[in-house]
Amino acid sequence: MSQEIPEIIIGRLPLYLRALKRLKMTGQGYTSSKELGEVLNLSPAQIRKDLSQFGELGTRGQGYQIKFLINKLHQILNLERTHDMAIVGAGDVGEALAKYKNFIHCGFQVTTIFDNDEEKIGTKMSGIVVQNSAEMTRVIIEKEIEIALLTTPAKSAQEVADQLVKAGIKAILNYAPIELKVPEGVHVEHIDPAVHLQKLSYYLG
Amino acid sequence: MSQEIPEIIIGRLPLYLRALKRLKMTGQGYTSSKELGEVLNLSPAQIRKDLSQFGELGTRGQGYQIKFLINKLHQILNLERTHDMAIVGAGDVGEALAKYKNFIHCGFQVTTIFDNDEEKIGTKMSGIVVQNSAEMTRVIIEKEIEIALLTTPAKSAQEVADQLVKAGIKAILNYAPIELKVPEGVHVEHIDPAVHLQKLSYYLG
Repeated sequence: MSQEIPEIIIGRLPLYLRALKRLKMTGQGYTSSKELGEVLNLSPAQIRKDLSQFGELGTRGQGYQIKFLINKLHQILNLERTHDMAIVGAGDVGEALAKYKNFIHCGFQVTTIFDNDEEKIGTKMSGIVVQNSAEMTRVIIEKEIEIALLTTPAKSAQEVADQLVKAGIKAILNYAPIELKVPEGVHVEHIDPAVHLQKLSYYLG
Repeated sequence: MSQEIPEIIIGRLPLYLRALKRLKMTGQGYTSSKELGEVLNLSPAQIRKDLSQFGELGTRGQGYQIKFLINKLHQILNLERTHDMAIVGAGDVGEALAKYKNFIHCGFQVTTIFDNDEEKIGTKMSGIVVQNSAEMTRVIIEKEIEIALLTTPAKSAQEVADQLVKAGIKAILNYAPIELKVPEGVHVEHIDPAVHLQKLSYYLG
């Protein structure tokens, strides 16, 4: 698989996958770029162009076979196995993520939680014992975890990220309201509800 | 203010604002497109181009005065007043959002929470009484709330969104894992951690 596919296209593949899974639940066998475009607010041409990056995935006249395309997207996105994840920061956001039921349907599971607060260490969150952050590097290496959900306060986020990278973490979903610096080969996605809200409030005019 | 500024630029303004606020905390008076670019992983040219959409905000040689630029961005993004928000869905995600301390520093506050679960109605979440969803339209109109945080399950999300639109909601931050259909003039931002994780897992290769 080529590594040179633009990141913006990779970012749309999970949306295609989510839409396809919903269509499959209705019992439908095939879909079209037109139908997917309506669901996703994208032009049919954009969808055909995106998917054509990965080979001939549809048939002219018939469209896309839903089951085939779902399998193909699972392959492309490395979703054929379940990925273990570590939460760092057992606060409210960490707790909501630990309880989040949709992860397992999407190929992910939280297996490990860390915090540096002595009152939290040893307690359970969604059935998982909160471990001491001091053990973080060792545990992540032992468990070969590649994905971390970073939910610490902003002031400690970069330091924690540096430790995660040293422990071999390759992907960070960052909930701390700060941009993280990571070396090449490590990928970060940032979720900050305030940023989305401030964008929305522009349109309140 | 022109409504024709591309959405992708509007989406970057909150990131500029967040970076500027952090620089201001260090006591710094001025910044440059180069410095902002380093913080945000954007080219200095991109930053100058984005900001030039809103007039002459910097001075050649001196750069951008941080305090002035923060005020200007507050103006552009309608952040000069605090926006009230309603949470619909008092589950784990709703609760984490109700407790989220960063909102108030960013211009937002949760004032109202709705759920249709009789066991939750009347209980308090982060000091706010959970109200019956049946009252949603009336309460939102009365309180003139324009922003909703939608944290219901996927299956009821579209129906709730339709009701919110009828009640006058203009902006929805959608945590339900489904694309919402809304009429023109209503804006939706979607937060789905699974979508971000599936993008990240592509790079785990």
